[in-house]
Amino acid sequence: MASPSTAGPGRGRPRDPAIDAAVLAATRRLLEEVGFAGTTVQEVSRRSGIHPPGIYRRWPSRLALIEDAAFGDLAAVDVPPTGDLAADLRAFVAAYAATFDAPACRAAIPGLLAAYGADAQPPADMWAHLSVRPQFFAILAASEHVDPALDPDVAFEVLLSLVLARLLIPPVSTADRPAALVVDVLLRILRPPGR
Amino acid sequence: MASPSTAGPGRGRPRDPAIDAAVLAATRRLLEEVGFAGTTVQEVSRRSGIHPPGIYRRWPSRLALIEDAAFGDLAAVDVPPTGDLAADLRAFVAAYAATFDAPACRAAIPGLLAAYGADAQPPADMWAHLSVRPQFFAILAASEHVDPALDPDVAFEVLLSLVLARLLIPPVSTADRPAALVVDVLLRILRPPGR
Repeated sequence: MASPSTAGPGRGRPRDPAIDAAVLAATRRLLEEVGFAGTTVQEVSRRSGIHPPGIYRRWPSRLALIEDAAFGDLAAVDVPPTGDLAADLRAFVAAYAATFDAPACRAAIPGLLAAYGADAQPPADMWAHLSVRPQFFAILAASEHVDPALDPDVAFEVLLSLVLARLLIPPVSTADRPAALVVDVLLRILRPPGR
Repeated sequence: MASPSTAGPGRGRPRDPAIDAAVLAATRRLLEEVGFAGTTVQEVSRRSGIHPPGIYRRWPSRLALIEDAAFGDLAAVDVPPTGDLAADLRAFVAAYAATFDAPACRAAIPGLLAAYGADAQPPADMWAHLSVRPQFFAILAASEHVDPALDPDVAFEVLLSLVLARLLIPPVSTADRPAALVVDVLLRILRPPGR
């Protein structure tokens, strides 16, 4: 995601990070309190005190703003590989799922999905995954217990699908610790033949 | 799902299956043509020629009608186990994913998810899964290549999550044959240790 806080030079005058933070905080509060439909740029402006043109200078659209408020925390996920696959996956899955589980993110997801399905295009770096996928792949690469024949993208797709479905529909299995379930599934998928 | 076509005796006078079929067909056409929001009982009534009270006698709510129109085909999935795990899973996943991939179902899912997230409760037998899960479990039970330590519900949760996510967001992996990807993932999860 072209997050405003990571916009480099050449994109105009330097931005005030305090303004970005105020707008994102107001957006998160609105998502929690009134939901996706009520989280409009006008209402974000009223809550944050930043005029709509200032908001649109930072985010090209209402959806881009909501995306950033919901998934910006993914940029903070930082799980360097230790070589202990199970431990690394536990740490990564916990940090990854925590972003999705935050109230503002839970409130945003069904509305974002409906908007994508209707007409809006998902952003190229949907849900800031560009920042976390390399970490996930590094964790896999650091372990000797990963089947080299497995496409790591497939493992990431399973991770994202399980986390997303748990937020959208009642759990299918009775496992009440979703992160442990995801880690167990990933370890099974990654296991080399004969192990 | 308490599908009207399977309602037994004791639920009032016998129903006319032709009326059920006409209402469901009109609902599917509306979902495809105007989407979830425009698929109202009033519009279904206009298209099918069945008065709204007749529709509400068969389905308790608009959401129940849309659920039945979108997922009723799951009741027709019929994949008896042969003992060949990979072949059985290929047949089952193809039939299961085909229901989700139908245009009316694709159109219904984001709206249903948003409704569940807002206030509606998903039906007890969400998406008619009660009818297909026993078949899935029978396929697993008929094979000697399934880890007995694996909770079969977990495998079903992976299946549902992968199929659902593929409909909602752009695919994470580049695999362009989603059914083959799902079968490969399931075989990896089900594999006993040492194989």
